[in-house]
Amino acid sequence: MKKNLITTAALLLLTAVLPSEAGAQQMNSPSGELSLNVGCAGGTVTYELTYKGLPVIIPSRLGLVSDEADLTGGFSVVAVSRDTVDRSWSPVWGEYAEVRDHFHEMALTLEQEETGRVVTVRFRLFDDGLGFRYEVPEQEHLNYLTLRGERTEFNLSGDHLAYCIPGDYDSNEFAYSTARISGLEDEIERRLALKTYETKAEGGLSVQTPLMLRSDDGLYINIHEAALVHYAAMLLDVDDVNFRLKAHLVPDKNGVRGYLQAPFNSPWRTVIVSDDARDILASQLIYNLNEPCAIEDPSWVKPQKFVGVWWEMFTGAGATWAYSDYWKARPGVTDYSALKPNGRHAANTENVKRYIDFAAEHGIDAVLVEGWNEGWEDWASYRKDRHFLFTKPYPDFDIDAVSAYAAEKGVNMIMHHETASNAADYERQLEDAFQYMVDHGYHSVKTGYVGYIIPRSEYHSSQWMNDHYIHVARTAAEYEIMVDSHEAVRPTGLMRTWPNWVAQESARGGEFESMGGNDPDHTCILPFTRLKGGPMDYTPGLFQTKLDYYEGGSKPGEQAGTTLARQLALYVTMPSPLQMACDLPENYERFMDAFQFIKDVALNWENSWYLEAEPGDYITVARKARDAQEWFVGAVTDENAREAVIPLSFLPEGQKYEATVYADGEDADWKDNPQSYRIYTKKVKPSATLRIPLAPGGGAAVVIRPVEK
Amino acid sequence: MKKNLITTAALLLLTAVLPSEAGAQQMNSPSGELSLNVGCAGGTVTYELTYKGLPVIIPSRLGLVSDEADLTGGFSVVAVSRDTVDRSWSPVWGEYAEVRDHFHEMALTLEQEETGRVVTVRFRLFDDGLGFRYEVPEQEHLNYLTLRGERTEFNLSGDHLAYCIPGDYDSNEFAYSTARISGLEDEIERRLALKTYETKAEGGLSVQTPLMLRSDDGLYINIHEAALVHYAAMLLDVDDVNFRLKAHLVPDKNGVRGYLQAPFNSPWRTVIVSDDARDILASQLIYNLNEPCAIEDPSWVKPQKFVGVWWEMFTGAGATWAYSDYWKARPGVTDYSALKPNGRHAANTENVKRYIDFAAEHGIDAVLVEGWNEGWEDWASYRKDRHFLFTKPYPDFDIDAVSAYAAEKGVNMIMHHETASNAADYERQLEDAFQYMVDHGYHSVKTGYVGYIIPRSEYHSSQWMNDHYIHVARTAAEYEIMVDSHEAVRPTGLMRTWPNWVAQESARGGEFESMGGNDPDHTCILPFTRLKGGPMDYTPGLFQTKLDYYEGGSKPGEQAGTTLARQLALYVTMPSPLQMACDLPENYERFMDAFQFIKDVALNWENSWYLEAEPGDYITVARKARDAQEWFVGAVTDENAREAVIPLSFLPEGQKYEATVYADGEDADWKDNPQSYRIYTKKVKPSATLRIPLAPGGGAAVVIRPVEK
Repeated sequence: MKKNLITTAALLLLTAVLPSEAGAQQMNSPSGELSLNVGCAGGTVTYELTYKGLPVIIPSRLGLVSDEADLTGGFSVVAVSRDTVDRSWSPVWGEYAEVRDHFHEMALTLEQEETGRVVTVRFRLFDDGLGFRYEVPEQEHLNYLTLRGERTEFNLSGDHLAYCIPGDYDSNEFAYSTARISGLEDEIERRLALKTYETKAEGGLSVQTPLMLRSDDGLYINIHEAALVHYAAMLLDVDDVNFRLKAHLVPDKNGVRGYLQAPFNSPWRTVIVSDDARDILASQLIYNLNEPCAIEDPSWVKPQKFVGVWWEMFTGAGATWAYSDYWKARPGVTDYSALKPNGRHAANTENVKRYIDFAAEHGIDAVLVEGWNEGWEDWASYRKDRHFLFTKPYPDFDIDAVSAYAAEKGVNMIMHHETASNAADYERQLEDAFQYMVDHGYHSVKTGYVGYIIPRSEYHSSQWMNDHYIHVARTAAEYEIMVDSHEAVRPTGLMRTWPNWVAQESARGGEFESMGGNDPDHTCILPFTRLKGGPMDYTPGLFQTKLDYYEGGSKPGEQAGTTLARQLALYVTMPSPLQMACDLPENYERFMDAFQFIKDVALNWENSWYLEAEPGDYITVARKARDAQEWFVGAVTDENAREAVIPLSFLPEGQKYEATVYADGEDADWKDNPQSYRIYTKKVKPSATLRIPLAPGGGAAVVIRPVEK
Repeated sequence: MKKNLITTAALLLLTAVLPSEAGAQQMNSPSGELSLNVGCAGGTVTYELTYKGLPVIIPSRLGLVSDEADLTGGFSVVAVSRDTVDRSWSPVWGEYAEVRDHFHEMALTLEQEETGRVVTVRFRLFDDGLGFRYEVPEQEHLNYLTLRGERTEFNLSGDHLAYCIPGDYDSNEFAYSTARISGLEDEIERRLALKTYETKAEGGLSVQTPLMLRSDDGLYINIHEAALVHYAAMLLDVDDVNFRLKAHLVPDKNGVRGYLQAPFNSPWRTVIVSDDARDILASQLIYNLNEPCAIEDPSWVKPQKFVGVWWEMFTGAGATWAYSDYWKARPGVTDYSALKPNGRHAANTENVKRYIDFAAEHGIDAVLVEGWNEGWEDWASYRKDRHFLFTKPYPDFDIDAVSAYAAEKGVNMIMHHETASNAADYERQLEDAFQYMVDHGYHSVKTGYVGYIIPRSEYHSSQWMNDHYIHVARTAAEYEIMVDSHEAVRPTGLMRTWPNWVAQESARGGEFESMGGNDPDHTCILPFTRLKGGPMDYTPGLFQTKLDYYEGGSKPGEQAGTTLARQLALYVTMPSPLQMACDLPENYERFMDAFQFIKDVALNWENSWYLEAEPGDYITVARKARDAQEWFVGAVTDENAREAVIPLSFLPEGQKYEATVYADGEDADWKDNPQSYRIYTKKVKPSATLRIPLAPGGGAAVVIRPVEK
């Protein structure tokens, strides 16, 4: 999968031992537009980054703090090695068939004279940003590190606008705050009024990454990390007076941020930057900083669309994950054989067959079934040591019959493993669970981590759990199973290494449309933040956006912050190799002309062109399907109407095309008239520009195909 | 395996609802010698126990404390059910071919009027003691309990003599203190000078169970617990002024003592009592309170003797578990393929074959090999997340060749799984590890838990870990593997349920003879304490007791507190279905006449007769082999010489016998002349009494066989 591996070996020879006082080093990106300065004045290592001469990161300290060694000062630079790499790689799936990995590299070897300890800081400067990491080599005076934190700073040049969620050790499922840094604390408080989760990061104001920023001098800056392996996730402590950010590693409950042993590398700390917001979306920097695919032959990893027994449990109309209501009267009863069915259990054979029929009829690849297995009567996390059995279907779910039926219809089944955050017990059952899946013809699993973690020393984003998710992905790969993890640590590009880890939730997803709703700008922010780490199983495709619709439903007034047409656009603006059509078959049947787009849209891309973008305001993107002469465009706006402007120059010349446009109706509005849409076709050529009005909270989706001349 | 299940069902009908003020209940043991009173004055439940009119437990409170419910007071007795059970069962292995389980039972159902909550306390009164437990049934107002502790008290009538080790959440590997309760604190401090481990129980003075006590009025009292399942181990807080003991449950690191859900039962709290110390040793009360065998067909569980690559790493003569010394210069190196052998790695193919030859030649069933797998260069616990691979032998250990050689010689192999207390990673590898064992013909594993536990919320004896050990035993049973766990929680009779869990260490074992030594009285205490929970892999059979012997050794002055003859006696006084002959083959070859006893001694017993016993002073026991007309006697003394008096009335009449006596030499002494022994044969009849002088720190072993008339 690699090619064009150029120059690496040769340039490593540039390593040179320098006089220790000569710490200052400079490096430009290949284009010359980014410039990095690294200094070592007074033994403290600092870096600064500029873009076209504008400050991105003003001088900021680096270092690691551990019980065994203070690696924050007393350093001198003893060696600098430089390199230039220009290579490309082909993702199994993604926004581009080929990704260029082109950077200048500088590795500073730092030595503490007093202790003889050595740390290397490796910087990679791409045209779209910076990555750097700590490398602690094997050495005599440093072995184990009980990490207490990083000194790593990302100091900003001013009171930037920030798009972010509050620091938390367990959850990313927050509504975004958009505010200047100086006003963040109040804004986050206001947004937390919508919280469904207790925020838990210690100390003062902190935010999570990917953190998106916009400066008054027109820079777009994204701070995150890449390749989070055997390390705690990074939050950022915010000094909202001086606009300084500092790494805040998620601890375990003993207060330790990492158990490390030399040799080791930290994850890459990443700063994506541009004066054009579209470049932030297009950036593949985080994937480039991850290791290549670890699966020898990943040809069994297949993008897929799915419907599922899921949203009906969110509508408030009564469907349940649990087989029984017995638990309400008799808590603690876990003899599932004795349960009396409640008659509203959605994952029953008949209902599942209905979804399979629908998928088969409309060319949807797969069906997810939640609530198929014993345990939902009583799955309060943290308080017991076995919540679910992953090999025990409820009595009304005939797994053999369902599997046979699905196979006959050519539909894949997706299993659900809700762990209730009992990772310890999930690991106990893992091999049996995966074997059970394979035995029943399942090759995809949606995992869930709702609630507090067991082992009880851990948080969702602490080091041990981050290893757990990889352990699950690796083990799944052995069974040729694809993984879609929910409520796990937010992604950091590890899907490059484990392409069977096809998607994650790890943000406030579509399910929240029934729990307070997602603001219209939410999906104008996610591609700038959460999605920089990897695809999200956002569950788009909600056609019945008002939950009042459901007779006798329990969620009056609940409503999604979206028009119907915008839901189609999300399949293009929120790329993922795993895309749900989340709504009920009966709702799709009411709007089959619109559903056609979901049937048609591709999942894997040859190329992508970001045409318009402003975080929190709008995104317009065009993509070419990887294996077809089909182009798709998605455009979304926030609560404000706007016109999407789509120059079609991405289309090859010498051909005529027809565009089918799925647009908001003229009177559409996310709040009052979300189901107003219009579908029209239009002959187009590459020199044309499509202009499509988007309603408040609206969007548009376009499919373009060549036509006979 | 059960028989004589009498009367249980019928007597359950005695349940009666009482007026709530009538709380006082009385029950006698079947013999009438033990008497239990339970009261409920002022809503607080108390119990007291007498033996032949003498106080064993003076009024002591009962109750559970949790975040959700205070279950310590406000109770009234709403029902009392009584029962008499007399049945017997046949252990897969043990001291008796059949065990009588005969008790009177009384279950008090307690209700808190204010909360409507219900707890049952079930008492079983045997002729040899009391067991009681809390049973929290399914109920409306009580579901989850976050347990903070038990109010359970064991209040004593005076300043008894105690034989005990200090409270600790991780280790039982302490030298015993023998002192009156009022002097325990000082004595424990003095003994801790020998510590190899940090004592860690919170609060004031605490001790571990089994706790052995002797009162001035001649009672012997043993306090412990039975069937420790999904619960924290119990230590005892000691009020050394008022002689009150109180349950102290081992917490997790968040301070929680248990995550429980109704319905649940606590382990049984046990008080074994007699005015004859021999009855304490003979008691099967703790096994009786455990659940029957959970393995459908345990016929593959076989008692066995073994030698092993083990003691040579303790002698100080240089043999190592690790393949290499490279780590000393380069900590952190874990690329085992790059290691340079140190030439002293004991688990090499050739050396292992030597042990196999020795075992085959002398009819020893099995060979243990420690240090066979990668990881020993660097296995500091707690500080990394993978210590050992259980499927990766060192390059000089040709596992296929060893397995083939052992099979050819008819010798079983015992694998070693040192987990470095990384239970989390052991569970990840468990199925692969057991499959690897089976694939290589191994059906026994010695597990080790050295160091601090991962998951990092846990201690060796906290609830989650107690479940872990059972998980390992249960999983091993699926692979028909026997387990010998070291450094795990001390046993509570669970071997009845999981007979493949053949032995544990969980005390200061024979290995300490090379690390400070075990006092001569140590093995006169263990059968009264640690062994009440189950067999111990004590590793007897040390013939070369002075480590000065080893040329160039690193342990000058180290010496075992034992004579050679006493080491033979331990095979009888410390019964276990798994017995090591711990010394080096070359040492046994110097004393082959004495080694004959180890070759001959049985491992599984038809019957046992405790002939003489005083905790900390002496034990003499006779046993009949289960499947042979052979009787064995073991006698041990403390630092004082004595004469063992052995009436042979346990031998069936009508037959003549020959006894072969392995006794201390006349000039033997554990310190100065431990290898002086004499072996002689003697015709004996049942009416005879053998009198065998025991040297200071000495012992004697006897085998008796019928002879032709």
